[in-house]
Amino acid sequence: MADAGDAAVDRLIGLMARLPGLGPRSARRAVLTLIRRRESLLDPLAQALADVAATVRECARCGNIATTELCTICTDPARATGEICVVETVADLWAMERGGAFRGRYHVLGGVLSALDGITPTSLRIPELVARVAEEGTREVILALNATVDGQTTAHYIAGELAPLGASLTSLAKGVPIGGELDYLDDGTIGAALLARRAL
Amino acid sequence: MADAGDAAVDRLIGLMARLPGLGPRSARRAVLTLIRRRESLLDPLAQALADVAATVRECARCGNIATTELCTICTDPARATGEICVVETVADLWAMERGGAFRGRYHVLGGVLSALDGITPTSLRIPELVARVAEEGTREVILALNATVDGQTTAHYIAGELAPLGASLTSLAKGVPIGGELDYLDDGTIGAALLARRAL
Repeated sequence: MADAGDAAVDRLIGLMARLPGLGPRSARRAVLTLIRRRESLLDPLAQALADVAATVRECARCGNIATTELCTICTDPARATGEICVVETVADLWAMERGGAFRGRYHVLGGVLSALDGITPTSLRIPELVARVAEEGTREVILALNATVDGQTTAHYIAGELAPLGASLTSLAKGVPIGGELDYLDDGTIGAALLARRAL
Repeated sequence: MADAGDAAVDRLIGLMARLPGLGPRSARRAVLTLIRRRESLLDPLAQALADVAATVRECARCGNIATTELCTICTDPARATGEICVVETVADLWAMERGGAFRGRYHVLGGVLSALDGITPTSLRIPELVARVAEEGTREVILALNATVDGQTTAHYIAGELAPLGASLTSLAKGVPIGGELDYLDDGTIGAALLARRAL
């Protein structure tokens, strides 16, 4: 007998266990909590999931998650149109938004170039980015890709594609994170922070 | 702007973050995974949650989770009726079932006695247990309560209530867990295991 012995409950546990951060044990605990807190948690969660399943899609312009054709950022008149911040994933877009410093628009690539995994420019919404920059007369493209080999390779490729269009290209500064201790930082970051040192 | 900026997605993240084992960060990751794997995960999970929300209830006899009036264990003709294993929670019942050694029926108390939290015998399905033992002519009641102070207090109280009915009362053995190392065990367990030592 697997788990609860009840087919519907077992199926729910099996699906919950496939979420990142949950395994079979925590999925069982989560399902028991859901059943115990039926009105306050189970019913609202079932409803919220059904709502999202019915409405969620990709923003036709930037690739962000949306429930209408364009996402809330692309349709926000308060956001500057002349700046596009290029990120790998929607998770990175949310991280930038939590930072709260960027007030322009985004472009979500959906990953990074990887010859090994067969990820080519066309599978990454890079042609869409080039078309957007040309069409919207973008002044600045900020390449906020991860500081990994694949991320930097992708940034380099995008820079090459955008070069003829005349938009200024920038990338996030590399340096010591706020609250970071030098003793715990890798050597590459310390080197980059030293090279990019600024006058007090 | 909180999280995704989309009301439906934000509500889903907020509800997921209230599950045990998930916080705001892992809830965001889980929701992104759900949206990325729509056919294989989001739609089935929405359906499974709706199914469980619509059908789940407490087994009228033992208090286990059920989708019919009696649970799959109470209605299984292969399970012995003369033995009742008393557990605190449905999670403990599942743990006993994974052990695979017990082939009788269960009785889920729904907690343990606690004067501090105002948990009295009637809020714990103890009267129902006494009625069942009398009615079903139970031969053996196994008190599989946690080895905590409250668990043992509850076991003691139940033993007093059941004493007049003539069923034999047992509790789980205390000792060294399988694979356990003495050096990491607490002193109480080592003492209990020594007192309960057996001839090889």
